[in-house]
Amino acid sequence: MTGIHKTPEKNLMVFTGRTHPALADAVAAELDIDLVPTSAYDFANGEIYVRYEESVRGCDAFVLQSHSTPINEAIMEQLLMVDALKRASAKRVTAVMPFYGYARQDKKHRGREPISARLMADMFKTAGADRLISVDLHTDQIQGFFDGPVDHLMARPILARYVQEKYGDRKLAVVSPDAGRIKVAEQWARKLGGVPLAFIHKTRDIDRPNESVANRVVGEVEGRWCVLVDDMIDTAGTITKAADALMADGAAGVIIAATHAIFSGPAVERMEACAAEEIIVTDTLPLTQERRFEGLTELSIAPLVSRAIREVFEDGSVTSLFT
Amino acid sequence: MTGIHKTPEKNLMVFTGRTHPALADAVAAELDIDLVPTSAYDFANGEIYVRYEESVRGCDAFVLQSHSTPINEAIMEQLLMVDALKRASAKRVTAVMPFYGYARQDKKHRGREPISARLMADMFKTAGADRLISVDLHTDQIQGFFDGPVDHLMARPILARYVQEKYGDRKLAVVSPDAGRIKVAEQWARKLGGVPLAFIHKTRDIDRPNESVANRVVGEVEGRWCVLVDDMIDTAGTITKAADALMADGAAGVIIAATHAIFSGPAVERMEACAAEEIIVTDTLPLTQERRFEGLTELSIAPLVSRAIREVFEDGSVTSLFT
Amino acid sequence: MTGIHKTPEKNLMVFTGRTHPALADAVAAELDIDLVPTSAYDFANGEIYVRYEESVRGCDAFVLQSHSTPINEAIMEQLLMVDALKRASAKRVTAVMPFYGYARQDKKHRGREPISARLMADMFKTAGADRLISVDLHTDQIQGFFDGPVDHLMARPILARYVQEKYGDRKLAVVSPDAGRIKVAEQWARKLGGVPLAFIHKTRDIDRPNESVANRVVGEVEGRWCVLVDDMIDTAGTITKAADALMADGAAGVIIAATHAIFSGPAVERMEACAAEEIIVTDTLPLTQERRFEGLTELSIAPLVSRAIREVFEDGSVTSLFT
Amino acid sequence: MTGIHKTPEKNLMVFTGRTHPALADAVAAELDIDLVPTSAYDFANGEIYVRYEESVRGCDAFVLQSHSTPINEAIMEQLLMVDALKRASAKRVTAVMPFYGYARQDKKHRGREPISARLMADMFKTAGADRLISVDLHTDQIQGFFDGPVDHLMARPILARYVQEKYGDRKLAVVSPDAGRIKVAEQWARKLGGVPLAFIHKTRDIDRPNESVANRVVGEVEGRWCVLVDDMIDTAGTITKAADALMADGAAGVIIAATHAIFSGPAVERMEACAAEEIIVTDTLPLTQERRFEGLTELSIAPLVSRAIREVFEDGSVTSLFT
Amino acid sequence: MTGIHKTPEKNLMVFTGRTHPALADAVAAELDIDLVPTSAYDFANGEIYVRYEESVRGCDAFVLQSHSTPINEAIMEQLLMVDALKRASAKRVTAVMPFYGYARQDKKHRGREPISARLMADMFKTAGADRLISVDLHTDQIQGFFDGPVDHLMARPILARYVQEKYGDRKLAVVSPDAGRIKVAEQWARKLGGVPLAFIHKTRDIDRPNESVANRVVGEVEGRWCVLVDDMIDTAGTITKAADALMADGAAGVIIAATHAIFSGPAVERMEACAAEEIIVTDTLPLTQERRFEGLTELSIAPLVSRAIREVFEDGSVTSLFT
Amino acid sequence: MTGIHKTPEKNLMVFTGRTHPALADAVAAELDIDLVPTSAYDFANGEIYVRYEESVRGCDAFVLQSHSTPINEAIMEQLLMVDALKRASAKRVTAVMPFYGYARQDKKHRGREPISARLMADMFKTAGADRLISVDLHTDQIQGFFDGPVDHLMARPILARYVQEKYGDRKLAVVSPDAGRIKVAEQWARKLGGVPLAFIHKTRDIDRPNESVANRVVGEVEGRWCVLVDDMIDTAGTITKAADALMADGAAGVIIAATHAIFSGPAVERMEACAAEEIIVTDTLPLTQERRFEGLTELSIAPLVSRAIREVFEDGSVTSLFT
Repeated sequence: MTGIHKTPEKNLMVFTGRTHPALADAVAAELDIDLVPTSAYDFANGEIYVRYEESVRGCDAFVLQSHSTPINEAIMEQLLMVDALKRASAKRVTAVMPFYGYARQDKKHRGREPISARLMADMFKTAGADRLISVDLHTDQIQGFFDGPVDHLMARPILARYVQEKYGDRKLAVVSPDAGRIKVAEQWARKLGGVPLAFIHKTRDIDRPNESVANRVVGEVEGRWCVLVDDMIDTAGTITKAADALMADGAAGVIIAATHAIFSGPAVERMEACAAEEIIVTDTLPLTQERRFEGLTELSIAPLVSRAIREVFEDGSVTSLFT
Repeated sequence: MTGIHKTPEKNLMVFTGRTHPALADAVAAELDIDLVPTSAYDFANGEIYVRYEESVRGCDAFVLQSHSTPINEAIMEQLLMVDALKRASAKRVTAVMPFYGYARQDKKHRGREPISARLMADMFKTAGADRLISVDLHTDQIQGFFDGPVDHLMARPILARYVQEKYGDRKLAVVSPDAGRIKVAEQWARKLGGVPLAFIHKTRDIDRPNESVANRVVGEVEGRWCVLVDDMIDTAGTITKAADALMADGAAGVIIAATHAIFSGPAVERMEACAAEEIIVTDTLPLTQERRFEGLTELSIAPLVSRAIREVFEDGSVTSLFT
Repeated sequence: MTGIHKTPEKNLMVFTGRTHPALADAVAAELDIDLVPTSAYDFANGEIYVRYEESVRGCDAFVLQSHSTPINEAIMEQLLMVDALKRASAKRVTAVMPFYGYARQDKKHRGREPISARLMADMFKTAGADRLISVDLHTDQIQGFFDGPVDHLMARPILARYVQEKYGDRKLAVVSPDAGRIKVAEQWARKLGGVPLAFIHKTRDIDRPNESVANRVVGEVEGRWCVLVDDMIDTAGTITKAADALMADGAAGVIIAATHAIFSGPAVERMEACAAEEIIVTDTLPLTQERRFEGLTELSIAPLVSRAIREVFEDGSVTSLFT
Repeated sequence: MTGIHKTPEKNLMVFTGRTHPALADAVAAELDIDLVPTSAYDFANGEIYVRYEESVRGCDAFVLQSHSTPINEAIMEQLLMVDALKRASAKRVTAVMPFYGYARQDKKHRGREPISARLMADMFKTAGADRLISVDLHTDQIQGFFDGPVDHLMARPILARYVQEKYGDRKLAVVSPDAGRIKVAEQWARKLGGVPLAFIHKTRDIDRPNESVANRVVGEVEGRWCVLVDDMIDTAGTITKAADALMADGAAGVIIAATHAIFSGPAVERMEACAAEEIIVTDTLPLTQERRFEGLTELSIAPLVSRAIREVFEDGSVTSLFT
Repeated sequence: MTGIHKTPEKNLMVFTGRTHPALADAVAAELDIDLVPTSAYDFANGEIYVRYEESVRGCDAFVLQSHSTPINEAIMEQLLMVDALKRASAKRVTAVMPFYGYARQDKKHRGREPISARLMADMFKTAGADRLISVDLHTDQIQGFFDGPVDHLMARPILARYVQEKYGDRKLAVVSPDAGRIKVAEQWARKLGGVPLAFIHKTRDIDRPNESVANRVVGEVEGRWCVLVDDMIDTAGTITKAADALMADGAAGVIIAATHAIFSGPAVERMEACAAEEIIVTDTLPLTQERRFEGLTELSIAPLVSRAIREVFEDGSVTSLFT
Repeated sequence: MTGIHKTPEKNLMVFTGRTHPALADAVAAELDIDLVPTSAYDFANGEIYVRYEESVRGCDAFVLQSHSTPINEAIMEQLLMVDALKRASAKRVTAVMPFYGYARQDKKHRGREPISARLMADMFKTAGADRLISVDLHTDQIQGFFDGPVDHLMARPILARYVQEKYGDRKLAVVSPDAGRIKVAEQWARKLGGVPLAFIHKTRDIDRPNESVANRVVGEVEGRWCVLVDDMIDTAGTITKAADALMADGAAGVIIAATHAIFSGPAVERMEACAAEEIIVTDTLPLTQERRFEGLTELSIAPLVSRAIREVFEDGSVTSLFT
């Protein structure tokens, strides 16, 4: 007889880098599996070493890594993990990056800059990633940077449901802290039942997007509870100034909702000092204890990510998760 | 002696497809050269044939093509022209597309759609384009879709200068017809000296971006001459409804400014009927006589494109054209 | 436990562009499945939009599109459909193009031309096609233009069987209308039982392959029923002049057989006027009612294409379809 | 000052593999340069070693290699030479292969065969060849197998001029030994002033293209001096049988003209025994002394190849060499 | 219903080139399957032709080829076999090369050389190989030359087990014939229970690695049975001189162990004449009868290769074969 | 006139990342140019931003970056700089990495590891690097990991010249601290006039290459001044234990020479405590003041790097720098 015939088997395996083990554990728990045991440490000069302790041949691999600070280590570790899977004959490799690093550098603001978000996409392709899963990308176009399927999960419905349940009976407005992100605020406004929309008109120094300047509220906010929405909170300068500007313009109160809690530098201090009643984020990024504070609410994306992984593995529909 | 030593020569050659000869002629005139004689016609079944009548070996080729209707022919012709240049040993091929076709399909609005703008970028790469030149891309991220240098020219300063000179002494406001493009309106507002900013808040059917629905003005426009700004005018539904909404909200008058005059279907009729005082566009796309009307002003981008070509050829700075 | 183990499933799905729904329906009927519901329309400026109404994740996708006029739209639509499948995680994408557009531009006839047939192959690869299926390619070498498997189906046996059954008892000759295609005529001659072979010796203007010039019959045709064979009938100039030349040389009658019925411009008029008894084609391309006429016979390739799709899906042998 | 500015220099260097030093010497002599000194030898187990004895950094490299028997060594040596040039920073590498190996395997004759001619093109691309130069390719479509410029030189005019001068006053016919190559014979017929055309109708075993079977002359040859034309003579079976068939059909005499003198196995014996008056070939392949015989004429392509190299180096027109 | 659902099947098929049928037969026997019937022969001018006699669509293909002399034919045949599999729709192609040709040219010893071992890896990738299997690579880094999984099998344990069993009770030392390979000798020393280590310090002409010069033993060998270890024996010059040097330094005896028995030129003569008691090799390369001699022991790698193929096919662990 | 003809100009520009400004300044000074002014800083979350303050269009760019700790930042910054140059139309980009990060992970020591050194090479290619320049690569095979030219500079002659001049009159031996690097020691021995060679035989835990275990000297060192040579000193464990072992075996003294001074963790402490008379390194990596100590000598590679850059720019020979 020529050949051996067999029914193949497919095998889901989930791997995690070292930046956000709590999220990986939660995802694994939702899937009712164990994470693949992995050796990972740094050599004395900072070079990262990784090795899997089990055979991964033929598996459908999902490699979770949060691109948290120190962000270049986080990215490099995930790239090395992908390379190791490719060379160890994983059948398919999906890089899961709940927060996509360098997403804000998605275009040339001025001449002679890199387009770093595209470079990241290309590097994951080069390392051997067949597909990506990410959450609330800074701009939708980033999906187009990767030459392959990208499952773009949306945490906004999770945040919106929470806001709706807790604040739905108040007189609300949705406010974008930035002219460039009103489109997203429009989606929020629709989700909250067609409430009014406003935005903060300000000038940003394009070289240092973390720092903002003068603010003017455009739209009607007086007497309303303003839901300030953004995709991420980094140093919290823009969003806390926006909260103050809204209160100065007569808002009844401010609630802040954002997917990615980067919380760099003075972020915690600023948020604790600002006028917002509540700040709602998700756990796409790890939050150390000292970056938690009163008034902060953290919602988990583990159920979302694990359902997406299961759908991808079982050839189900990820689109249907959002309808 | 081993080898022959020579001082090389570089040679700028400009080619044009068949969609917008007037622009190509104007660019050539600005550069003080002739376009390369080219045979181009359609076979009986619509297949396009192109051939260059002069040797192009070693040249620095710039292939102009406006992606006007019928747009797929326009794109395919430019792709074939690029392939012919690659195979005829052009040293470097730059595809110049004043209007970048499929730019609005720059992301997946819903699942199971193509990202057509990325596919276009990849096809030009595959055909042999080393670099692209385009004008006022629908979103800046499209630059990141191409794996190579993209010179993104800005026609907005040309439009803004015209508005400033003609209407600068009136009480102005800048209005975005769409929440997603306020960032661009902010740039206009800055260019016009920090005038107020507003936008039209409406719902769009995401499947048919040409058709819009209910409109609400967000921002102060009463008693002001509103400069409605957009990157393109396609069927003119959105922008003319926006003009009407502004007048209904008490605007003193409306001026429309947009880079790309697609003018599809009912566009001309709508613009002639609408409240706008003047509609200002550029010649990135060809305008047939029957699509010209009173109140329409067309500014030429030929000087901009030709200066960019010269800078690229001479290794000068394109960035400096905009500072 | 590390990992989830499952037996995978493979899922055949057939998609069609908008150019030839009748063929797609016939293929689906042969396979006893429904075509995947698909939204496809043109924007006002001619840009094509496509979206699948069902999840396609993990499927074995076959995308049918006839490259009929307007041919560039047909090709672009298929490319966009392939891109959408790739980005929606289809497992494997096969582009089925019963007639392969630009196949006649398979070489540089003179310097500074594109090799358009290669460019098409590369663009389908770039868009994400893993494999191609086509019927009676203009030249066999086109298979080598694609970097991957090409299943080259042959409709000639279908045509030949029909001719054999209907005209097998007459005294036949096989005639090539062109010196470049006698090899194919040799195959016909063998299939018809070793009948004599002839060809028309003429000069073609290499720039306009649709138009031919003076004709001379080489070979013995007197008193014979001549089967004039070609791969395609475009404007029908060459083939109808050949029919006339054969009659002038004393042929008893002429039958024309060709796979691809492009029927451009004056084709129908010419064929109705020519000396041929019967013109036999297949339905690789859609034939509108006004391009049908008396004496035209259309044989269906749907059984062939559907069998090939089934063999590809089931890892059977396509080669065996032709032996 | 930032940067150092210089006028660059371009430098033509010609390299040769070990298969056909006489041709390389002749080309170098025509260009009035020396070949780059190169070490090349085989290790004990047959692995080839190459190294250049001079710096090649920044040069415009032309690597000549005739794909003569043992043909796999010839090809591998040229690939290694290209790789060495790429890694040694040659600016541009042109592989010059007067005879392109595996050109006859340019399609799948039956299922489960390689398309070897495409694989060769891809391997030269992979090794680092930017462009190819070849002479009288077996089929024009092979140009399309390479992803880059191919300069396809034509030796046929050299052969035709010789025949015209020596036999132009006789009553000629042009004969193709094979139905698949009549197109080329047509070009010959045109070049010789529109003389009649014929071909040999026979069946070939597709697995062993060197061996042919029964022959029948199609076309008028009686009383004419027949110029039997082909691109190559391998074992000479087909062509010598064709010569005999022509004589049997009443030809006045036979002249054989072909570009590539492979002369394998019994070729010389067969040619010496056959009815042809003269056999005219070129020196694209090396001819050992024992494969030369009376009645054989060898014309040199060195002037053609050297002119092409010069035009490529100087950005002149290769197309113009043939008009 | 949209689509046809099936449980897929996977199918292992093993193919062999013509260089080492005995090994292929042994591997097939271990797997209890037949080799896929394959036509392979040379055309008159040395071009290789291959074709599979059975459908290979969807199979998991393993193509065995020993890179024995004539080595360029061996490599080219395997490349063509891989191309044919890719184009015939094999699902996955693994090139199995027990001896990896050109492995010694894994770096530039001096400027202007190729890195031939990398070129081989790239050519197999280009031809369509998804993965490689090889045995005892000359350097481990060669794994990194291939862009995909490489299963690097180790024959050393087979050799070491044999030595241990036969000579384990003597007083042993492990000796490297070359400073560059002591790392491997260290592994041997560990396997043999921590016996002493030595090496031969000599100068090699870097251009001709087969020929060595003066030798000096570094390390303690007096009175010990020296196991001289290397990855391959080519002309046997280095290793037999090493054996003599060891005896001259007072060794009690010498045993030579090497994986790859190239045995070029004077190898057999030298080995027969040298001081070694026994020479132990494997059958990664075919050994003709005239290259067998007394004192030579050949161990089979067929069990190792067949187990690796089975593990790869069944998604088992190849790593575990060596622990 | 069709086209504009010009003599091109080439323009050398040197850029530096932020890790080793002193070396960049020294290289620029040797070349008598200024470094291109560059903005580079970290965003709050660690994302790196870079932008060039001058036009770089058409330049021949050399981007220096030492891969020092934190090494992943260093590599990512260089990748982003390369991407920015590619997108800003630099003509050619050379990444200069005096120390190549992850070079020790150049193979899979065990299954399921990445080959990190290959991944680095591929990422630089992906980002847009046309070529690399590096110094004393950990293994020569790394050159083969990059798909393009690599200029591999050798600092060993600089170190050897220093040793020769200062210690040439003593009775020397060259010692490799590791069996895997004796080849390099052989080169040293040759450079120092053929002095004896020895090595340290030890076992390393393959997971943690910085930490070594038991040592045994193989070779004659008694009464000799031992030059302990390695390519890098990381934690200095291996090399300082080797120095102690040599003294224990009766060496007259120890001198340590290594190219790359990583000096991680306890390195300085260990070196200060060890028996070596002098430790000689180069400045491929930056040495902070607290990592300098008595007995440490630092030789500059700036002259070497700047000469190589000049040769590359001027199409001279880099090979000739080492002969």
